[in-house]
Amino acid sequence: MTECSVSLDNLFHALADPTRRAVIEQLSHGTASVSELAQHHDMALQSFSQHLKVLEDCGLVSTRKVGRVRTCEISADNLAKAEDWISQQKKVWHETFSRLDDYLSDLQNGETQE
Amino acid sequence: MTECSVSLDNLFHALADPTRRAVIEQLSHGTASVSELAQHHDMALQSFSQHLKVLEDCGLVSTRKVGRVRTCEISADNLAKAEDWISQQKKVWHETFSRLDDYLSDLQNGETQE
Repeated sequence: MTECSVSLDNLFHALADPTRRAVIEQLSHGTASVSELAQHHDMALQSFSQHLKVLEDCGLVSTRKVGRVRTCEISADNLAKAEDWISQQKKVWHETFSRLDDYLSDLQNGETQE
Repeated sequence: MTECSVSLDNLFHALADPTRRAVIEQLSHGTASVSELAQHHDMALQSFSQHLKVLEDCGLVSTRKVGRVRTCEISADNLAKAEDWISQQKKVWHETFSRLDDYLSDLQNGETQE
């Protein structure tokens, strides 16, 4: 696995393409060979292999070759890294919103007591 | 909000850049003006505005202008759409993995009873 496997730039770039997301969706149901994956996509095998390389380079998919068959597997840990970044922003946003809500409630109560 | 606000292609593309992720991180702490956001980034205002436009076009950030000040706000709902897609793939993957685990356990128990 290369250094870019932990790069959010590369992870989100890989996920920004419908073919690559479809591969992740397929692989979430279990391992598959390159030809099993490619048959669902109306494009040349060379083009499909380039999409697979993007997923492999950023660590979202791992592959291993036994004989003439290359089998692909999802790397859930790296998928989780992209999810964790988004979750963290949402968490901070909700905390900020909640504090603002409390502040506005305090203001309103203060006004009521006057 | 334009049609592309719900496009995962555009959402993930927007998140694949460190400047744009930094803007999201800043805005998760509360609203900010364009100049408040821009001061943290060592680039021309025009370049920064282009990043902001990408975030605005895909619905991750909304802006409103009062007088000469444009204020930016995060759109948590669209951030959640990107997170939901990833969560769904992880969920399916874990279910698949769990079923495989059960199957292997059953196999092992069968072998033990023989």
